[in-house]
Amino acid sequence: MERARYLEDYEIGESRETYGRTITETDFVVHAGHTGDFFPHHMDKEFMAKSEFGGRIAHGTMIFAIGVGLTATEINPLAFSYGYDRLRFVRPVLIGDTIRTRVTAARKEDDPKRPNSGKLFEKVEVLNQRDEVVLVCEHIYIVEKKEVMA
Amino acid sequence: MERARYLEDYEIGESRETYGRTITETDFVVHAGHTGDFFPHHMDKEFMAKSEFGGRIAHGTMIFAIGVGLTATEINPLAFSYGYDRLRFVRPVLIGDTIRTRVTAARKEDDPKRPNSGKLFEKVEVLNQRDEVVLVCEHIYIVEKKEVMA
Amino acid sequence: MERARYLEDYEIGESRETYGRTITETDFVVHAGHTGDFFPHHMDKEFMAKSEFGGRIAHGTMIFAIGVGLTATEINPLAFSYGYDRLRFVRPVLIGDTIRTRVTAARKEDDPKRPNSGKLFEKVEVLNQRDEVVLVCEHIYIVEKKEVMA
Amino acid sequence: MERARYLEDYEIGESRETYGRTITETDFVVHAGHTGDFFPHHMDKEFMAKSEFGGRIAHGTMIFAIGVGLTATEINPLAFSYGYDRLRFVRPVLIGDTIRTRVTAARKEDDPKRPNSGKLFEKVEVLNQRDEVVLVCEHIYIVEKKEVMA
Amino acid sequence: MERARYLEDYEIGESRETYGRTITETDFVVHAGHTGDFFPHHMDKEFMAKSEFGGRIAHGTMIFAIGVGLTATEINPLAFSYGYDRLRFVRPVLIGDTIRTRVTAARKEDDPKRPNSGKLFEKVEVLNQRDEVVLVCEHIYIVEKKEVMA
Amino acid sequence: MERARYLEDYEIGESRETYGRTITETDFVVHAGHTGDFFPHHMDKEFMAKSEFGGRIAHGTMIFAIGVGLTATEINPLAFSYGYDRLRFVRPVLIGDTIRTRVTAARKEDDPKRPNSGKLFEKVEVLNQRDEVVLVCEHIYIVEKKEVMA
Repeated sequence: MERARYLEDYEIGESRETYGRTITETDFVVHAGHTGDFFPHHMDKEFMAKSEFGGRIAHGTMIFAIGVGLTATEINPLAFSYGYDRLRFVRPVLIGDTIRTRVTAARKEDDPKRPNSGKLFEKVEVLNQRDEVVLVCEHIYIVEKKEVMA
Repeated sequence: MERARYLEDYEIGESRETYGRTITETDFVVHAGHTGDFFPHHMDKEFMAKSEFGGRIAHGTMIFAIGVGLTATEINPLAFSYGYDRLRFVRPVLIGDTIRTRVTAARKEDDPKRPNSGKLFEKVEVLNQRDEVVLVCEHIYIVEKKEVMA
Repeated sequence: MERARYLEDYEIGESRETYGRTITETDFVVHAGHTGDFFPHHMDKEFMAKSEFGGRIAHGTMIFAIGVGLTATEINPLAFSYGYDRLRFVRPVLIGDTIRTRVTAARKEDDPKRPNSGKLFEKVEVLNQRDEVVLVCEHIYIVEKKEVMA
Repeated sequence: MERARYLEDYEIGESRETYGRTITETDFVVHAGHTGDFFPHHMDKEFMAKSEFGGRIAHGTMIFAIGVGLTATEINPLAFSYGYDRLRFVRPVLIGDTIRTRVTAARKEDDPKRPNSGKLFEKVEVLNQRDEVVLVCEHIYIVEKKEVMA
Repeated sequence: MERARYLEDYEIGESRETYGRTITETDFVVHAGHTGDFFPHHMDKEFMAKSEFGGRIAHGTMIFAIGVGLTATEINPLAFSYGYDRLRFVRPVLIGDTIRTRVTAARKEDDPKRPNSGKLFEKVEVLNQRDEVVLVCEHIYIVEKKEVMA
Repeated sequence: MERARYLEDYEIGESRETYGRTITETDFVVHAGHTGDFFPHHMDKEFMAKSEFGGRIAHGTMIFAIGVGLTATEINPLAFSYGYDRLRFVRPVLIGDTIRTRVTAARKEDDPKRPNSGKLFEKVEVLNQRDEVVLVCEHIYIVEKKEVMA
């Protein structure tokens, strides 16, 4: 559950995929109640039946939070999360869709402010049961280096 | 609650601030249960008492989801959310902190793929009770134009 | 758990009291999320610290719903709930207060629309740990009569 | 989000309607857990399939709490909620029904105990997707007067 | 709601049955979030559609906790819960099944460590809507004796 | 996250320990709402302040469910959970205690009904922040054998 990995230990291109999780009507209601966003796009079946989507669509913040949460299985004590770039809501998620997350080590960069660490950029893709990408973003992970340049 | 605004109706520099909301231990537990991320940084009081933070720190995804949720008071039927850029977790949020969100219209851009609309970039800042920024990101909002160039 | 009682079986003045239940910060957060009412009176510790109440105060609808819920221990298959009169929020409930409910059979009335039943008016009082009434209302209960006038 | 309105600013007959919200099985389970009322009318699908309603029916306190919660979009700092009269459960709400709330300024009255304020009585109607009233009550709102009689 | 019963007051063979409660998809999501067990057996509709069960199956710990919770209607101030023996998950519970619990006084035993009390063993059976046992266990209840041997 | 292990792969005496998790007032409220057990031992601060425990004590079913949930980090596709023996509530858990679970492979047994599998008995101990055992039970795990006797 804890696995120490230095920046050098991540191989560009390595990838892992999480379990699947069905997004239920319950998740819609919980997320609305958790965030206070009760917009009819997420909560009004009648209103959305007439929309182009044919039904209520998930909050973007929920798919992001659950998509990231699915990856929280292993702690790297040598790293911490710095932020996310280019978060995009590519396709709507409807009640009953099943999502999973694929994380791929995309590239590394030095971190001018932290000489003992570097940035690992991870491509995060949330997929549905038809293997379509529904959300994509880039995670910026600050990871300690094994060997620090003099 | 619904207010139609064209891209031209947004003035660069205009700003709004939400109500405050105290982030409670309950929110920590709800977010862990909602996302499945039970990492000890968020859930283990004993472990975190010894850390540099002195206590459990909020999930970044929670401050993002609640921070954005606080702004969900008015629907613009001429716009939709495209994504977020440069999401950064600037300071930790601890149990009992009170956050609010400030949204500022930052800049506009044409959208090559959508001639009838444009992009409004909104600076989103989540602040705590000491007026410190705890999270920042840029929201990309696709908004219809009133006048479309021939 | 089920106890059949005719209108005649209720004695005016008879009274019962429920267990106590401490109203927690969790209940505040759950009720806000359940109803969508995130007003700062219930959710913003900083804002309310400066108020006359000294802290966040419970939603009136929550004290009503939980106060009534506490009484839900026994079903009378000969009766149903018609409504409530004179619901008043007498005193604020703060986080950590412990409430219980006292129900007293107050008076009976014929029901012109239902000759086989009558109305039992129950005085419902929600009390706190200092035995102060915090909420009061009158419950109208339609109960079958044992003996129907010819 | 905050709008100061004196008693004189409310026009008798003025009306507003909220967004719609679909009442889900999740709401039933959350309300039972929140209030402790697990009566089979709300929780036992098999038992209720044989009833006149054909299925589980919502707690009256839930439709009241959510119906009122839907209206919580704007704060009037010159007013506070005093209580409710004539709360009636007119029609059952089943899982999947979509409700919204209409609030109409019905009448005003002087408040003998508060010479600087008066009572605004608002008719609160909760409607379903067939525009049928499912719950009705009268909200008593104490609002400051602009001009106080000498 | 409180009923004092000595060990001698329990008759071997006496039995009680609770109300029914439909186990909903919401309960699955709540239990996963409450315990942190998001295994696909409980959460992934697609994965389980291909399994021998044909759908998601309930956590064993949930059926135990809710099955026991259904019996919590009456407090015996002369007794406390010591533990459970032979807890077995006999049949899967699927979303939409309706369970109820039957408790039968099975046998009594002296408690060497507590001369003033004895052990009451209660057979706890959780049944579904087809009257099939889905979970069984033996509850050990320490109950005061009315007459203590010299 | 998935790791196939045959019965032979488990070594008697091998042990693993989970992360810690602080049991919060929120967990008490969630468990009461999830199971319907609102007994004052868990919910009434005033009542329990006068008790021998000095405060509200956790539901035994909650410590069992969360204690087991903490171990749900790895799936063995060759095994399934059969039940639990000798579940004992050894010490009370109060709000703010931090628990973790230790699982130890205790002994193996043939399963007369399943020649291709055997029983692995795991000792499950839930510990608090003072390393005291608060709950103990024996988990019965049916695991496939690598080599089946002819």
